[in-house]
Amino acid sequence: MDSVKSDSLLSLLNTFSEIGKVQPAGFTRKVYDDQWIRGQLEYADAAKRFGLNVFMDQMGNVFAANTADLNDQAVILTGSHMDTVEHGGLYDGLYGDLASLVAIGDLFTTMGSSTVPLVAVSFSEEEGSRFETTFSGSKFATDQFDRTNLALLDEQGTDFATAREAAVKTLNDVIQMRSQRLHVKEYLELHIEQGPVLEAHGVEVGVVSGITGQMRLLITVNGKANHAGTTPMDMRDDALQTANAVMNSIYKALHQFTDLRFTIGKLNVFPNVTNVIPGKVVFSLDMRDLDQAVLANALAQVRSICAHRAIDIDITTNVQPSRMAPELIATISQSAAELNLSQTAISSGAGHDAQVISYQIPTGMIFVPSVGGVSHSPREFTKSKDLANGLAVLSTTLKKLAY
Amino acid sequence: MDSVKSDSLLSLLNTFSEIGKVQPAGFTRKVYDDQWIRGQLEYADAAKRFGLNVFMDQMGNVFAANTADLNDQAVILTGSHMDTVEHGGLYDGLYGDLASLVAIGDLFTTMGSSTVPLVAVSFSEEEGSRFETTFSGSKFATDQFDRTNLALLDEQGTDFATAREAAVKTLNDVIQMRSQRLHVKEYLELHIEQGPVLEAHGVEVGVVSGITGQMRLLITVNGKANHAGTTPMDMRDDALQTANAVMNSIYKALHQFTDLRFTIGKLNVFPNVTNVIPGKVVFSLDMRDLDQAVLANALAQVRSICAHRAIDIDITTNVQPSRMAPELIATISQSAAELNLSQTAISSGAGHDAQVISYQIPTGMIFVPSVGGVSHSPREFTKSKDLANGLAVLSTTLKKLAY
Repeated sequence: MDSVKSDSLLSLLNTFSEIGKVQPAGFTRKVYDDQWIRGQLEYADAAKRFGLNVFMDQMGNVFAANTADLNDQAVILTGSHMDTVEHGGLYDGLYGDLASLVAIGDLFTTMGSSTVPLVAVSFSEEEGSRFETTFSGSKFATDQFDRTNLALLDEQGTDFATAREAAVKTLNDVIQMRSQRLHVKEYLELHIEQGPVLEAHGVEVGVVSGITGQMRLLITVNGKANHAGTTPMDMRDDALQTANAVMNSIYKALHQFTDLRFTIGKLNVFPNVTNVIPGKVVFSLDMRDLDQAVLANALAQVRSICAHRAIDIDITTNVQPSRMAPELIATISQSAAELNLSQTAISSGAGHDAQVISYQIPTGMIFVPSVGGVSHSPREFTKSKDLANGLAVLSTTLKKLAY
Repeated sequence: MDSVKSDSLLSLLNTFSEIGKVQPAGFTRKVYDDQWIRGQLEYADAAKRFGLNVFMDQMGNVFAANTADLNDQAVILTGSHMDTVEHGGLYDGLYGDLASLVAIGDLFTTMGSSTVPLVAVSFSEEEGSRFETTFSGSKFATDQFDRTNLALLDEQGTDFATAREAAVKTLNDVIQMRSQRLHVKEYLELHIEQGPVLEAHGVEVGVVSGITGQMRLLITVNGKANHAGTTPMDMRDDALQTANAVMNSIYKALHQFTDLRFTIGKLNVFPNVTNVIPGKVVFSLDMRDLDQAVLANALAQVRSICAHRAIDIDITTNVQPSRMAPELIATISQSAAELNLSQTAISSGAGHDAQVISYQIPTGMIFVPSVGGVSHSPREFTKSKDLANGLAVLSTTLKKLAY
């Protein structure tokens, strides 16, 4: 393992451990806020120290290329995002963000220009924690951004367009604007797993096969609220008792699928009073699988369970699964093997910029273990050895693809 | 049916339909508030118009006796309560309150003094909707009131003692205080059913056999919150999935009891987010039965279902069942029969002053139908014919007992 590279990465992470730090613990850098601006400026400074060519786009995505003269050449892009959830950890987004910069900077320092230009990116936003839209940075970069989102308001009533304009103006004082969209031939992303699989199996590197599609339902069970003491059992229409039977059937039916992940995470009872028979229950169902046909089949089973009752089903989210590019999966796997790191194919149940980008561009993704599988929490942690492993796999892969 | 009596009652109810009226609908007379004071004063005025002897106690219970010289004679007491829940209906409490006054007043007018003195009572509070204590009026009158409740605060931060003192002082300007506790030999209460049974079976009068005991549990199921996308199904400890199985078993086990009424009315999931596996679920279980042994057996079954898991059970309420006095049940039943009214034995699943009083004194209770079983709601309604029927049964019963 190259200790110079991993020292650079740890030093950068240390610098960022003060940017967006919140009490009592964790980090909050919501897109376009002051700490986010500080982060993108720090990223640009670090890129300049590596001698990279720094530029940005109208969305506030910051790029660092290993050539000053890109024009419209096809490039290999690698990176992640600068924003965090509220009270998030240090590693989600930022690890891949900084590791990409270090990998390209180090390759440039040691090997000079590449045959295919390499560009690191620090995407503006992926988490959706300020405005009700996710992946706006990578969507903009790949021409998938829906401009109606510019009218979205944050909790303080500031709209996306206004927040973006002010932040981009500040960044633009020191970072040049490139109006032309990059021509990206391949995208790579390094990320902490945010789940417990690699750690539990003692595997050092996850070669991501795909990112699961996600279907979210909101299921409403209607009954009749009534007095818990005076209403005989045979004269009740108890929405929670019905919901409980429905949930029981859903759990049973969905457990039959091999890989499907499903969660009833949210459930609200109305009026939710001890001595009142529930009149209405609303619960969510989150289902994820790499295979869209499995999701469709699962939905059909849920619909069948909910038929013939006073139950409504709303589909609130329906994101298609994404597949990583086979040639990039192979190259990442080969890199891990050459580095003598244990590896496994793994699917991602969480969304990533790589998911959105893969709809347009061949994409590869590398995971490293998360201690306890914890993420979106100040307790999020990945060991230095694992951080270095991921960086080495990314660097080796980039070298194979670009030099 | 005696139309004079029922006209008096309807006229009084009409007067009260302006006392505590709130927007958009319903009535709010919380104990000791201005509208409650107005109500007790109006009650005292009506009693005086009947020529009854009006007095009160330190709690603000207002009494009306058919003799000026009670001393410590054993009396028959009948009445209900003046307070309402927030946005309650016209009939809960007030119907029995005013009907008792009319019955005693009318008997006094037509038949003069009775062998056993009759006393109507308008209890101060039964609903517990201002302070976290219920039945304080009837508990005080029967020496069961726990004085530590005087320190309880309402939502505005006023304590029970202060609120009581001010209201009682105002009432005392026009109603004489009697410091000596009444010697009550029997208590009768007329009330709307607050449930759907009488209406559904087309029966005119319910002769209450008892008031169900009530056991309330709070059941906490502990699991481990985690990411819904990244946590494999076999590495989860989903508190809602466990709770669902537990609830399913509870529903099945408790449905085996013939008369037990049970309700899971309140259920909260933590953190209650669509894409987070529930880490904790807390739900209530309300169980009611006339037989304490049935409640104990049901509790044992719930404990057994919840054994061997990370589940905690708290008993938050444990009220003993109460039985109405057999001789009063017989007299009420005979009265209804003489009046050619259809009748049925019925248990009360809701609490009443009669419940508290029955622990000390032989008690009888009469129900009349509630349209749709609706109560504690502005939609609460009982037809005039049913109001008159209940009054007639009460009046006939009092006549049998006292003259």
